[in-house]
Amino acid sequence: MAKPLALTSGEPAGIGPDIAIEAWLRRRELDLPPFYLLGDRAFFAERAKILGLQVELADVGPDDARATFANALPVVATGESATARPGHPDVTSANAALASIRHAVDHVRTGQASAVVTNPISKSVLYRAGFRHPGHTEFLAELAANGGPAPQPVMMLWSPTLAVVPVTIHVSLRDALADLTSELIVSTARIAVADLKTRFGVAAPRLAVSGLNPHAGEEGSLGTEDITIVTPAIEILRRDGIDARGPLPADTMFHAAARKTYDCAICMYHDQALIPIKTIAFEDAVNVTLGLPFIRTSPDHGTAFDIAGTGKANPSSLVAALRLAARMAATRSA
Amino acid sequence: MAKPLALTSGEPAGIGPDIAIEAWLRRRELDLPPFYLLGDRAFFAERAKILGLQVELADVGPDDARATFANALPVVATGESATARPGHPDVTSANAALASIRHAVDHVRTGQASAVVTNPISKSVLYRAGFRHPGHTEFLAELAANGGPAPQPVMMLWSPTLAVVPVTIHVSLRDALADLTSELIVSTARIAVADLKTRFGVAAPRLAVSGLNPHAGEEGSLGTEDITIVTPAIEILRRDGIDARGPLPADTMFHAAARKTYDCAICMYHDQALIPIKTIAFEDAVNVTLGLPFIRTSPDHGTAFDIAGTGKANPSSLVAALRLAARMAATRSA
Repeated sequence: MAKPLALTSGEPAGIGPDIAIEAWLRRRELDLPPFYLLGDRAFFAERAKILGLQVELADVGPDDARATFANALPVVATGESATARPGHPDVTSANAALASIRHAVDHVRTGQASAVVTNPISKSVLYRAGFRHPGHTEFLAELAANGGPAPQPVMMLWSPTLAVVPVTIHVSLRDALADLTSELIVSTARIAVADLKTRFGVAAPRLAVSGLNPHAGEEGSLGTEDITIVTPAIEILRRDGIDARGPLPADTMFHAAARKTYDCAICMYHDQALIPIKTIAFEDAVNVTLGLPFIRTSPDHGTAFDIAGTGKANPSSLVAALRLAARMAATRSA
Repeated sequence: MAKPLALTSGEPAGIGPDIAIEAWLRRRELDLPPFYLLGDRAFFAERAKILGLQVELADVGPDDARATFANALPVVATGESATARPGHPDVTSANAALASIRHAVDHVRTGQASAVVTNPISKSVLYRAGFRHPGHTEFLAELAANGGPAPQPVMMLWSPTLAVVPVTIHVSLRDALADLTSELIVSTARIAVADLKTRFGVAAPRLAVSGLNPHAGEEGSLGTEDITIVTPAIEILRRDGIDARGPLPADTMFHAAARKTYDCAICMYHDQALIPIKTIAFEDAVNVTLGLPFIRTSPDHGTAFDIAGTGKANPSSLVAALRLAARMAATRSA
């Protein structure tokens, strides 16, 4: 029997609680995999009331969540309660959000949950409370390390017709140029290949590697990095037996026919990866963190403070994240 | 009575002649606007033979092209003949390609043609023959100047659901960062607005201006250029009464709902503009040069030497370019 998914609350003042409740209410219609929400039952009950939604909430332990899921939204307490109103994070926000993440990781490590699905947090709120990690994903990597050296987390954006991995991520374009090395491309691509095999069930993953420059540098006339950085990385990957092609001109590698020729696009910087997938799969792209010792997915949007508590938040990306996490968990244990 | 479109041959050894012939053969089915091809009739006849296509070719002057178009592909001689075989440019290629462009510009300037539609050329072939312009578009700008100061040509990629203009174009990503200034954004956007009004019939063009950095720099934490370069440009445009919004995060501005909120996206570099449009409109995006004293469109692909003369070349982007040129010409004279 598959274990349930551990779903974090995310920032309490954001839309995480809203979309978690909305998704649970549509569990039958959407045939959702069982999940439980980590946080304070009274807080979620209050949010449901604000949203005008009738929802049964049950305080349970992770082991009872699966049986409970059909009839009530299972809530597993973290010991941290939250008081933040929608759109207005307060002093309880940071501890509640962090406790939710810590418990989810504990549960997946002990085998009580099959995967971690995280709702969006607010970095600026956490920073004000003394949080010292660059972001959500790095925090998860450190929790995963459990005191040892942290693994390299790799961000994948996944949709049914396109999966992309940016090699450099949340840095300025100028810093992306400075940070890009053959080593970083190789280590990122290797992690993508390993997880495509074990968690997506792709026996021989095909990678399409983008060029950094327009037209992949046009043989050096539009920048030399595709010759000096990207090509050597692809050669190393190919010597490892990895099916990697490139550097490909980024503008012609994402149309429908091109997408069918690879399992994952390895891109050199944030927008090169995220523009194509958000252009074609804006509502249901899923953020997947590869390279961790557990499965982690999350919806591909932020806290959306402006619409928290209004009923306008769209749960479709969370629904896609829950589904993908369950699929990955099933693949992994297959 | 609208004047015909002047269609250049492009590089004789490329697919330009192939797709011109294919397009003319489908003129009725596709309801194409009248055009004539600039070059050597014997050469086009030979290409048709290689392609196994039955096509009537008529040597005419521009003024007779319209009446001829229904029954024969009108060919207007340039005085330069070509001998290049498909895929194998030879010494005649450069002069034939350049003469075709020069004549097209002459005809549109004298009012014998309503617009210039250009087939792809090979820069490397032209360079070997002494061509000294950075590219096709800059050559057209200089011809347009007719000895005076050359106008700033602005590249637009157009499709029915998305039009994009890159501010920096065929330079490395590193040079794009160095070249980007508020002045360049402003001058580019002004040209886009002017041509959207006069040639696309958009009374009050709405511009969506992308940020340079991921998340448009996230208030400076992911790069400062969106604050120091992009935002001031938008402020100048808005003071001019131009409806310009931004800097917008580039990854979330191209999905279907977002595209409906603007007429043209002004993007900071090549791939930021070309990735979204080629992802959704690979076959029928049209390259339009704005800022010239005449209308110029072209198919959005290269010479494709590998498939020239094989019958595999797809004329759909040329067809889209012909249609858009005719539409722009009709708007202009309206």
